[in-house]
Amino acid sequence: MSGDLGPRVAMAAAQKFIATFDDVDLLLVGNEQQLRSLAPTKKTFSPSRITYFHASEIVTMDDDPLAVLRHKQNSSMWCTVESLKNNLADACVSAGNTGALLAISKHLLKTFPGIERPAICKAMPTEKNVTYFLDLGANINCSAEQLHQFALMGSVLALSTIVMPRIALLNIGTENVKGTDIIQVAKTLLQNDPRLNYCGFVEADSLFSGDADVIVCDGFHGNIALKASEGTANFISQKIHRTFNKNWIHKLISVIIWPLLKQLRTELDPAMYNGASFLGLQKTVVKSHGNANQKAFMQALIVAREQVIQKIPARIQQQFLVKPSL
Amino acid sequence: MSGDLGPRVAMAAAQKFIATFDDVDLLLVGNEQQLRSLAPTKKTFSPSRITYFHASEIVTMDDDPLAVLRHKQNSSMWCTVESLKNNLADACVSAGNTGALLAISKHLLKTFPGIERPAICKAMPTEKNVTYFLDLGANINCSAEQLHQFALMGSVLALSTIVMPRIALLNIGTENVKGTDIIQVAKTLLQNDPRLNYCGFVEADSLFSGDADVIVCDGFHGNIALKASEGTANFISQKIHRTFNKNWIHKLISVIIWPLLKQLRTELDPAMYNGASFLGLQKTVVKSHGNANQKAFMQALIVAREQVIQKIPARIQQQFLVKPSL
Repeated sequence: MSGDLGPRVAMAAAQKFIATFDDVDLLLVGNEQQLRSLAPTKKTFSPSRITYFHASEIVTMDDDPLAVLRHKQNSSMWCTVESLKNNLADACVSAGNTGALLAISKHLLKTFPGIERPAICKAMPTEKNVTYFLDLGANINCSAEQLHQFALMGSVLALSTIVMPRIALLNIGTENVKGTDIIQVAKTLLQNDPRLNYCGFVEADSLFSGDADVIVCDGFHGNIALKASEGTANFISQKIHRTFNKNWIHKLISVIIWPLLKQLRTELDPAMYNGASFLGLQKTVVKSHGNANQKAFMQALIVAREQVIQKIPARIQQQFLVKPSL
Repeated sequence: MSGDLGPRVAMAAAQKFIATFDDVDLLLVGNEQQLRSLAPTKKTFSPSRITYFHASEIVTMDDDPLAVLRHKQNSSMWCTVESLKNNLADACVSAGNTGALLAISKHLLKTFPGIERPAICKAMPTEKNVTYFLDLGANINCSAEQLHQFALMGSVLALSTIVMPRIALLNIGTENVKGTDIIQVAKTLLQNDPRLNYCGFVEADSLFSGDADVIVCDGFHGNIALKASEGTANFISQKIHRTFNKNWIHKLISVIIWPLLKQLRTELDPAMYNGASFLGLQKTVVKSHGNANQKAFMQALIVAREQVIQKIPARIQQQFLVKPSL
């Protein structure tokens, strides 16, 4: 119901999603009347695959997470996460208030034993593949032990596509002595864990280099790196747009080379990488960017489906059950 | 003598610099024979404007700053900074080891009373103007008082082009309650200082938005934001390059639209914004990016000249002498 663009985008993406994948059913939680009014008039798939679940309240983007926990238990966000707890759904996707979604998810779904708090993890595009980057803002201050837990969770996600994923710690230099005390202790924990293929420190300019398959940091650092990269991409994209719209000659040129510009736009489209996972929870919760368009929201739904198929929560639980032979 | 590309780049930039600005003389510190061999054979300006100062040692990019302080007092970097201390020069520029340059500068030049440590500050391009961003890595852990000092120093720099510069704190959200305890205390200090036009928190995606004229953060956060933005710009620029070089048709198109691509490249060229200042020192020290080309090194020299003309160190000293009327 929330996100910057409201349920219209989520509904459009949901319809595309269910039409694309035969193996999913959808539970749509929110103001039922409003949601039904957004459904297509022409049925393109079996109505039995969609269930509406009415929720009277909405968590707004400005709501305080703790206040939501106390007072918004009839909200669509709460009911969505509760449907996972009650085994009515395998995964949920929301474009709403991140802090509230995190608080509700942690409260209702719990983390697995051995995991103090969930971490927000996102796949960043690289030249060859993707790099899993966490935590992106769930935990402002992290202990070295938490960073170690994030490394274990991130490695599970990377293992679905890569054998022996390389795990790195984000730092302000690659030299062995660099960084805060917490990062230095985390380095030792990662180095000594036989479950992890620790490959050293990386700097924030390596986010897209593919030098590591998993990059671990605290939520403050991750949030800054992610936002700085978003801001830079926006700045450059505005410059490109302005250059090609400066005058009619430039506009004409941009029409001629439109296929190239379109290809470039597709390759760099942030919608392609939408969908951040809350790792460490006992069920799959995926956060879509607040301003996600239909394509981006669809991508977040695909991330959720993939994590259910890959049984990511169970495999994370397994990772924390195994006693490492130190 | 150092930097990723050695003295060749610095010498070429120095020659361009002295030819462009009538009001500067140069002191070139390093291996004199090597430097002289890089000088142009054809004299384009009075030789009296260039003085060579022989230094036998070189600080390498991998040298430990503390070891440099103890054992490399004959290095070109040490002698350069010492020339400022001895009033042989008004400002120095180096593309060498940042940590070593900072340690030597702090040791020889000292900070002004009231300033605990220098901060690294850089002008970031925005749609309208520039935003001064500090600290970019000089101080891993900063107290709220240090962040306050950075705000005062940054505001002096911004005051050279802007009346009442807007000062912001980098945070992971713009809501008033967000961030670490240190950031919360710093917010109160900035809000209550009548010398500062504090405008609130900004997120890292606002680095290029022009929403603030000065953005203040600790060196760890600043370094991550700057590097993430550099990494993103590189990633996008590689994508653009690859798109326009994919096959002969694309190459042909890129030849046709070459003026547009050139304009775009010029506008986004990081060389245009090279030159980070070590603010808080009693003299002007400017750090050029290690991999700066001639144009970028020239830009760092221009930054240094500008700060001498604007008397930035004296004005920072003044800022810390004035007792705020609280």
